[in-house]
Amino acid sequence: MDWQALIDQMTNGATNALARLIILVEDRAPGWREAMQRLYPHTGNAVAIGITGYPGAGKSTLTGRLVEALVESGKRVGVVAIDPSSHLSGGAFLGDRIRMNAVSNLEGVYIRSMGSRGIVGGMRAAVRDVIKLMDAFGKDLILVETIGVGQDEVDITRTAQIVLLVCAPGQGDAIQYLKAGVMEMADIYVANKSDLPEAEQMVENLRSILFQDEAGGMVGPSIVRTNALKGEGIADLVDAVEKCVAAKRLRDDWRRQRVIDDVKSLMKERLEVLANINGSENQELCGFIEDILAGEATPYALTDEMIVGTLEQLLTQHQR
Amino acid sequence: MDWQALIDQMTNGATNALARLIILVEDRAPGWREAMQRLYPHTGNAVAIGITGYPGAGKSTLTGRLVEALVESGKRVGVVAIDPSSHLSGGAFLGDRIRMNAVSNLEGVYIRSMGSRGIVGGMRAAVRDVIKLMDAFGKDLILVETIGVGQDEVDITRTAQIVLLVCAPGQGDAIQYLKAGVMEMADIYVANKSDLPEAEQMVENLRSILFQDEAGGMVGPSIVRTNALKGEGIADLVDAVEKCVAAKRLRDDWRRQRVIDDVKSLMKERLEVLANINGSENQELCGFIEDILAGEATPYALTDEMIVGTLEQLLTQHQR
Repeated sequence: MDWQALIDQMTNGATNALARLIILVEDRAPGWREAMQRLYPHTGNAVAIGITGYPGAGKSTLTGRLVEALVESGKRVGVVAIDPSSHLSGGAFLGDRIRMNAVSNLEGVYIRSMGSRGIVGGMRAAVRDVIKLMDAFGKDLILVETIGVGQDEVDITRTAQIVLLVCAPGQGDAIQYLKAGVMEMADIYVANKSDLPEAEQMVENLRSILFQDEAGGMVGPSIVRTNALKGEGIADLVDAVEKCVAAKRLRDDWRRQRVIDDVKSLMKERLEVLANINGSENQELCGFIEDILAGEATPYALTDEMIVGTLEQLLTQHQR
Repeated sequence: MDWQALIDQMTNGATNALARLIILVEDRAPGWREAMQRLYPHTGNAVAIGITGYPGAGKSTLTGRLVEALVESGKRVGVVAIDPSSHLSGGAFLGDRIRMNAVSNLEGVYIRSMGSRGIVGGMRAAVRDVIKLMDAFGKDLILVETIGVGQDEVDITRTAQIVLLVCAPGQGDAIQYLKAGVMEMADIYVANKSDLPEAEQMVENLRSILFQDEAGGMVGPSIVRTNALKGEGIADLVDAVEKCVAAKRLRDDWRRQRVIDDVKSLMKERLEVLANINGSENQELCGFIEDILAGEATPYALTDEMIVGTLEQLLTQHQR
């Protein structure tokens, strides 16, 4: 595997090199870590925007419109479309993705569809890496479109710097979003399908909840009305996104927070691999499991010392 | 908090003590670990049965029927119903749960509904603990009913010893189950809504896929036809469950595997807490993050030694 050649081609603008790198890094092909090391200095310019909301709220249509508007204003745009091989998506989904295909022919747009099955480092880590690769490729903005608003989606959206929550009348009310834990993490609330009669009530509901939660000093969440199907309100949305990016960039911890998130994410992935022990592989744990089977200990007696000891032992074994 | 009194009441059959213990352990209230330690010797008798399948396949109705039949045959039954405050459940859900309420009045049945939000140790750990508590309380069988078949549900179902996959015509075909990773983990395939015209075709599809995957020496997966609404096929299902339990109990690694799973689960939970670091809390990582910000390192340079070192440092700090 000639990683350096791929990296050179990719940073010189070859889309097929980007596509290959994405697949290799997702697969955790030997050398992926070193490749990401080499690419890291090229990252840090792009802003990742998470787009979430219930199925049927119009996320894909909105994403398509947003891509068009951003390209028109001279931005290079990447799209990560999460598709967990899904039973959740329903029939409208394929149609939306076909619409997205038209957008993919626009100059400077790269779209990557991602399924959750078979990704070695887990979905969240994979999305993070794909964002980094598109960033290094030279994208300015990377839209990450999720399907639902379950815990997986919340996790994935957290890898973005800015989060749009797309709401539409009849697609789950604000209370449900609060319950799903997605309400408090959004920077911009998109009230889509603004032509529907219940749209005004929905905006009122959003407003009453958001004003309760508003914290001083932060970038206040804004509500933008759109009708993605007709392309209405998209200019306002682009404006809100740009203001949000500019305001966040001014914050001291903007870069630091991203670095900490990167380190945490890699640490979590590695710990999950290390924790995936089996009884025979590790002496300390093996003895502990025998003690439990003999009725002389319980699993709840597992201590931090034992965990660290186990990790150390695995480390020594792997270095041998 | 008088844990011992609660434990005594619970093991003497007080349902309200069980309910309180469940809440306290879910909240990781101080002393939860010691309480689980004390209860552990009382566990190991119950068998947990995961019931999964797409929304609309008839899981709740089937669970209700199964509970009735098991109670009738003299079993003490617990039910864990996963309800992730959900947008996925649709309208039928509440109705199903109302039907479940009738079942909850049966002698020896305890039902616990669980939402995924706000559970300290994560959903999977919480389900595992609730199963243990019901086990210690004296339940013979604990049915764990999930809502969908996403990754969360697959994880939760893995805490069960036996998994039923409920299929129904028109509720997602076998290929989709394969994609979702749930097909290969089921022990019993329930072909529900057997009165529908497409039912026969569905059973044929299941059969062709299962025969491809069948491994020698294992308990072969069985297909049971039911019509949960009318109560048809439930006796066959109880029979299949009992055969499966008996066959699995004969296997040498039956108890060992459960112990290993318990240890892994507790280790994973603890590692996730430890991994949830921030830059200021830890010297080693703090220096590393500064190096990254100064352009002298990248997050991908994070080594296993650094991870173990960080864990050790946190350990020392917490012991101080």
